[in-house]
Amino acid sequence: MLPGVGVFGTGSTARVLVPLLKAEGFEVHALWGRSEEEACCLAKEHGIPFHTSRSDDVLLHQDVDLVCIYIPPSMTRQIAVKALGIGKNVVCEKAATAVDSFKMVTAARYYPQLLSIMGNTLRFLPAFVAMRQLLMEGYVGEMQVCDVRVYGPSLLDQSYGWTCEELMGGGGLHTAGSSIIDLLSYLTGARALRVHGLLRTFVQQNGLIRGIRRVTSDDFCFFQMLMGGTGSSSGGVCCTVTLNFNMPGSFVHEVMVVGSTGRLVARGTELYGQRNGSKGEELLLSDSGWAGPEVKEMPLPYLQGLSSMVKALRQSFQAHEERRSWARGSVAMAPTFEDGLYVQTVVEAVKRSSCSGEWECVEIMSQEPDPNHNLCEALQRNKN
Amino acid sequence: MLPGVGVFGTGSTARVLVPLLKAEGFEVHALWGRSEEEACCLAKEHGIPFHTSRSDDVLLHQDVDLVCIYIPPSMTRQIAVKALGIGKNVVCEKAATAVDSFKMVTAARYYPQLLSIMGNTLRFLPAFVAMRQLLMEGYVGEMQVCDVRVYGPSLLDQSYGWTCEELMGGGGLHTAGSSIIDLLSYLTGARALRVHGLLRTFVQQNGLIRGIRRVTSDDFCFFQMLMGGTGSSSGGVCCTVTLNFNMPGSFVHEVMVVGSTGRLVARGTELYGQRNGSKGEELLLSDSGWAGPEVKEMPLPYLQGLSSMVKALRQSFQAHEERRSWARGSVAMAPTFEDGLYVQTVVEAVKRSSCSGEWECVEIMSQEPDPNHNLCEALQRNKN
Repeated sequence: MLPGVGVFGTGSTARVLVPLLKAEGFEVHALWGRSEEEACCLAKEHGIPFHTSRSDDVLLHQDVDLVCIYIPPSMTRQIAVKALGIGKNVVCEKAATAVDSFKMVTAARYYPQLLSIMGNTLRFLPAFVAMRQLLMEGYVGEMQVCDVRVYGPSLLDQSYGWTCEELMGGGGLHTAGSSIIDLLSYLTGARALRVHGLLRTFVQQNGLIRGIRRVTSDDFCFFQMLMGGTGSSSGGVCCTVTLNFNMPGSFVHEVMVVGSTGRLVARGTELYGQRNGSKGEELLLSDSGWAGPEVKEMPLPYLQGLSSMVKALRQSFQAHEERRSWARGSVAMAPTFEDGLYVQTVVEAVKRSSCSGEWECVEIMSQEPDPNHNLCEALQRNKN
Repeated sequence: MLPGVGVFGTGSTARVLVPLLKAEGFEVHALWGRSEEEACCLAKEHGIPFHTSRSDDVLLHQDVDLVCIYIPPSMTRQIAVKALGIGKNVVCEKAATAVDSFKMVTAARYYPQLLSIMGNTLRFLPAFVAMRQLLMEGYVGEMQVCDVRVYGPSLLDQSYGWTCEELMGGGGLHTAGSSIIDLLSYLTGARALRVHGLLRTFVQQNGLIRGIRRVTSDDFCFFQMLMGGTGSSSGGVCCTVTLNFNMPGSFVHEVMVVGSTGRLVARGTELYGQRNGSKGEELLLSDSGWAGPEVKEMPLPYLQGLSSMVKALRQSFQAHEERRSWARGSVAMAPTFEDGLYVQTVVEAVKRSSCSGEWECVEIMSQEPDPNHNLCEALQRNKN
């Protein structure tokens, strides 16, 4: 039986998510927006019976068994951790910091019977599902290089907000880079050991963001990841990722994996492959055609990925009679909160590397940093 | 009047060059090959009256006024410097080391009336000539990012040789990377201040190179260059270059420049552009069609670039009565030996960065390193 859903957020993803959920038979019982007005507007549009700007009203809503959190990164941790504590299943977007991600991991570990997945949608895109399958079957031989490019128009909102602020989780690395970091670990089956990166904010002000305000989030980011060796290879897989969001009027989303005997390339939602020795590329998976709504802010790979994830959620819950129970099978490929922590750790290592100019190690947090740590150190220093 | 030409080399470039020279009206009087046999074979094929395996016989040949040197990098310096000393005009490929390049610069400075250019051919490709013109006219606004990708099959020769050896000037960085480094300084009008890079040799042995022999030259190279600031911009242009020569059956040659108001992309020999605000790319320069010979080892951009360079050489010499004189005009865009030293310096800085993991400064040699330097230092140490 399908659980009742509560949705957090009124942004572009939430706007797409609600109709996708309904199309799969989920009932959306409650909607939270930062302002009453925003919530009211979207609730009316989609016939959601209850809306609010108080988060507890959604979390404690008796018909809500699954909470979908698509809100600014800095607010995600609080809602996600609380939702799990109340006993609700959670699908959510990334948090703003590794510390936040770690707190979410702790909560998820504490409630293993609850569903807790990251709403990273690229893993669910059929092209990447097929790509992973082919990689595991040895289509490219031993993996050598992953080369990713995401080019598109500015990620900034119309008005000044979190998308402009690096510390609030804005920027190309945090937004698109996160999805790619997760995807590459899914495709290669390995995690980054060391990273090197370069971030730039080429457009610091525009017609809407001016005066004393400046954009601090990156609009260009370039990073490399050296993945954990698989034993046989000397250095593991090299991943290079180029993100450029100064290209209005275009959208390029290309993920290429090159190996010893061939290569696979996903362009947008299509998958191509070429084995060494063959003359040209073969189309392995063509675009299935998107019947859903076109969304300007959300490129097709993300849109279709989101749609596939909602389908997987439906299958997962349908397998059980009880509306809060779910089967691991169809959502087993979804990124866990642990994956979310890994991704956030890589993002922060890339940022550190951009400052230091050096390769930075990816060290996953194993315990929460003591908030009094700095204070203690200062006291310690004073004593000496 | 066109000068008589002597050609050094019997490799794929020399094989293409000879007919191109003849098509433009140059007479090729002499050919040098490493072995009599190789020289004889190519000379017969193209009706070259004289061939030899002794370099002086070509350099001192009385009908030779222009020497074209397309031989392994480690041999280039010796021939080029000697040719200038004898009073011949020189077109040559890159040397193996910065020290060699510096010696060539010294010789070129000593004989400023002689033509001395690097046979780097991408600058002459019509797509890049047009690209540079459009960049200077402000098509993309303020330049932000250059993004280059060169993918292709292995660069290794059939048998073990210099192409396998990093120290001999083999590898993707030295071969294709050099052309790209030169091209990017031509396009942006700036030089790299700092570089960061990663080199890999994924295929260390193959069916032909085995046993105790291993390939040391890179088949994958990835590097970034921070170009000298133009004053107004904070950090100058960021260039990212990905070279992958583990992709048999494909050839991708893409150079993209992204700026504040638009972008230009050269794909192979074609040029595309898109200004911010327009819906799609426009084709700015289509492929002119290549009537010359197809050469498996030499992709079209290099082939057409070489052809354009030979045309420019013809114009340059035709402008003068005396067969050794030339006009700077039509070859003014050609890379000088100084440019060659810059390129070699960047190549070595990228290699250093791949070892150190750090950003490396590009410091152009201003005097020849003392060969006794290490010895002196050792003596100095012993004294203390």
